[in-house]
Amino acid sequence: MASFENHTMVMDFYELTMAQVYFNENLNLDAEAVFDLFYRKNPDEGGYAIFAGLEQVVHYIRNLRFGEQEIAYLRSLDTFSDAFLEYLAQFRFTGDLYAVPEGTIVFPNEPLVRVKAKMIEAQLIETALLLAVNHQTLIATKANRIVEAANGAKVFELGARRAHNFDAANFGARAAYIGGVDASATVYAGQHFSLPVVGTMAHSFVQTFPSEYEAFLAYAKTYPNNCTLLLDTYNTLESGLKNAIRIAKEVLEPQGHRLKGVRIDSGDIAYLSKKIRKILDENQMQDTAIVASNSFDEYIIKSLINQGAKIDIFGVGENLVTSKSSPVFGGVYKLAALIQKDQIIPKIKISENIAKLTNPGYKKLYRIYDAEQRAIADLMTSVEEEIDPSKPLKIFHPVNTWKSKTLPAHSYLIEELHVPIFIAGELVYELPSLEAIRAHRAASMASMWDEIKRFEYPQTYFVDLSETLLKLKLDMMEQQQG
Amino acid sequence: MASFENHTMVMDFYELTMAQVYFNENLNLDAEAVFDLFYRKNPDEGGYAIFAGLEQVVHYIRNLRFGEQEIAYLRSLDTFSDAFLEYLAQFRFTGDLYAVPEGTIVFPNEPLVRVKAKMIEAQLIETALLLAVNHQTLIATKANRIVEAANGAKVFELGARRAHNFDAANFGARAAYIGGVDASATVYAGQHFSLPVVGTMAHSFVQTFPSEYEAFLAYAKTYPNNCTLLLDTYNTLESGLKNAIRIAKEVLEPQGHRLKGVRIDSGDIAYLSKKIRKILDENQMQDTAIVASNSFDEYIIKSLINQGAKIDIFGVGENLVTSKSSPVFGGVYKLAALIQKDQIIPKIKISENIAKLTNPGYKKLYRIYDAEQRAIADLMTSVEEEIDPSKPLKIFHPVNTWKSKTLPAHSYLIEELHVPIFIAGELVYELPSLEAIRAHRAASMASMWDEIKRFEYPQTYFVDLSETLLKLKLDMMEQQQG
Repeated sequence: MASFENHTMVMDFYELTMAQVYFNENLNLDAEAVFDLFYRKNPDEGGYAIFAGLEQVVHYIRNLRFGEQEIAYLRSLDTFSDAFLEYLAQFRFTGDLYAVPEGTIVFPNEPLVRVKAKMIEAQLIETALLLAVNHQTLIATKANRIVEAANGAKVFELGARRAHNFDAANFGARAAYIGGVDASATVYAGQHFSLPVVGTMAHSFVQTFPSEYEAFLAYAKTYPNNCTLLLDTYNTLESGLKNAIRIAKEVLEPQGHRLKGVRIDSGDIAYLSKKIRKILDENQMQDTAIVASNSFDEYIIKSLINQGAKIDIFGVGENLVTSKSSPVFGGVYKLAALIQKDQIIPKIKISENIAKLTNPGYKKLYRIYDAEQRAIADLMTSVEEEIDPSKPLKIFHPVNTWKSKTLPAHSYLIEELHVPIFIAGELVYELPSLEAIRAHRAASMASMWDEIKRFEYPQTYFVDLSETLLKLKLDMMEQQQG
Repeated sequence: MASFENHTMVMDFYELTMAQVYFNENLNLDAEAVFDLFYRKNPDEGGYAIFAGLEQVVHYIRNLRFGEQEIAYLRSLDTFSDAFLEYLAQFRFTGDLYAVPEGTIVFPNEPLVRVKAKMIEAQLIETALLLAVNHQTLIATKANRIVEAANGAKVFELGARRAHNFDAANFGARAAYIGGVDASATVYAGQHFSLPVVGTMAHSFVQTFPSEYEAFLAYAKTYPNNCTLLLDTYNTLESGLKNAIRIAKEVLEPQGHRLKGVRIDSGDIAYLSKKIRKILDENQMQDTAIVASNSFDEYIIKSLINQGAKIDIFGVGENLVTSKSSPVFGGVYKLAALIQKDQIIPKIKISENIAKLTNPGYKKLYRIYDAEQRAIADLMTSVEEEIDPSKPLKIFHPVNTWKSKTLPAHSYLIEELHVPIFIAGELVYELPSLEAIRAHRAASMASMWDEIKRFEYPQTYFVDLSETLLKLKLDMMEQQQG
């Protein structure tokens, strides 16, 4: 199973070249590093993202070890000393990792994962951690946009054939399910992630039989209880729909079954679906669902619904599984602090681009709610700070630092978003079921204002700094420029 | 190793639901199907694609079997009969598979893979076959565009962290290498595909040391022979470059070493690279390479080169590994013929969109060259046809059928593009090394006119039909409309 494989070597080579220097300089002995994983921009100019990929990170870290073949390969590169390779052969992750739970609605610039570990350990997990979170968060977010657009109609994920290889199909199906789709066509994902799988027939199936009617008949014989027929192999209205109704009336209904659905995959979906709905209804087939697929994305689905298309289930393929309109989730992994002899030394990365300044320090992340349990802002604080909701709370915009806001005492509730996943290398987190992750996503969505969830030009959610953290950042910026 | 895993269950559920109907109807006993894998549009409006993914298809098919866990899962779905599950437990691929070799320049609408197998066998491999070819062909093609844009400068693939999960990073690195990049940062790909890996240091490395100079010094101590320093953690020209030159002059050169390279990752790359080149040259460091990375794609690289940027190596990440500007390769798998009792029954899929008409029949694929070994057209023929270059050859455009061309006798050479991969389920193809695939790609590219390889608005290469095949297609279109 892909998720339990040893993917240790899926790392950038620089992680190993850096690690050897740390090893040679003995930096690993007395120093720890704190890294934050965060992203800077929501996909598709949206208002939020849905965090996913943590379970895969957990499996990666638990299986992290350099076996004999790995060491032999690294030795063949003539770059690493025997002493360092010996160290790698014994390598285990022994650090702390905190993260927001999968399914949480998240925002730019806040730490989604926080790693505190020896330099080499923190560095060697960089690529795998980013890749799992970037991919699954991207697809969960895209799926959620599509599900929101479908406005109550069901959404099936059908994209495996256009996914960027096997893992993208499988973990993409998982992420899409976290994001809210109702089922996937990918059997492997059904088997390994316990999500519902769906599928009926291809055009080639209909073409294989001497006639469309005979193809439908054969299908109905095998699946009388669960019969969805593909209408558009020859002519949707003139042939496909007529044969489907004939199957319903002459084959299924006399046996006490109903035609479960009809599927269209080409032509003008709005026009065809309205026409088909009317004809099905005239034949007392109100319970026969219309499934449509045809290179849909959230915009096309919105437009179809606006035009009154009668679609019960949207099948979505390549535009979901590759997040075609926005195929890169730009998560980064940045040094936030060093810890030497129990002393925290915050680190900042200065950039010409002010939005690319990192937020320094060993930090905590809170979500602040109003009295109605609506999220009003996320807040980064220094790890030593405690927030007391019985006191007023002043929060600051991290870039436009003159923007601040004071929440009156007793007017707000706080929730710490990070949960401990690994402590001293031990897994301390019970991985939730996919259904629990979906429920968490729904609850997290429900706590957000509609203005944040709006499709176009959403309101920007506040991700702020505590006064302590702001002061630290400003001081460090001044120092580095001075 | 990912490529040898059992990925049997990475299929669309409909392949199994269809298969059970074929099984119940005994269609599998006396009928074979011929499927063509082809695509309709080059990525990025380019003139060609580079075929890749075949090795992965071979591993998939060789490992194709439903184990106990797979059967148990399928049984749990309450959809499949015991008899069918018993059949699946014994399932092997016993058909024929032909394909163009990896690294071949290919074009829309021609069969890249041709499968002739029992209905169920041909159907069950659909998703995995498409997904491997779609992904790797996409990335090989994108990589080749980037390499062509770099115009002789080296290109490194650095995208793993933004890839769509592990396989996308690993097979993406492989495909990029086929497409022409010189190396990848992904260690796993280096280990499993024997391609060169590269990497130096991250900004966090520089930040970990008390000063940039000390970071560079530590790196140079460990890698005196292979020292590339990252200049832009603090200030590229004022700090990074000065410290790098100091390391070269005070540390490396006295020991008989040279500074191998400097790397820039932000700021205006054209300006900085020219400035850095000048200063390095003034310091007799003409051999120190400038490596640049900063969200490059083929367009940005072209523009930098046009502006005289002095870059020896382009590091390319997310835009390559996701093919960001064109992230979907739309390969499809369509029924071309049924074979019943040795009789070939061609199949065509009619569509409202004329360009989506399939080319019917059990077909061969030729490339036709002129006397100078330049490719002038690809030609699909019926499988029984033979071409005799000592006779004239008339070829027809598959959609605009009034367009035809006659090649005079003795004026042309032909090459059959399909090679046998599996015959009766046995692997008959020796998988070439990655270096051999790269050499084949280079030779295939060299045989193409520059007009085809042009970046913007390339000439459309001819993919034509033989007279026999054209007649078959026109007859079938008429029949189906009648």
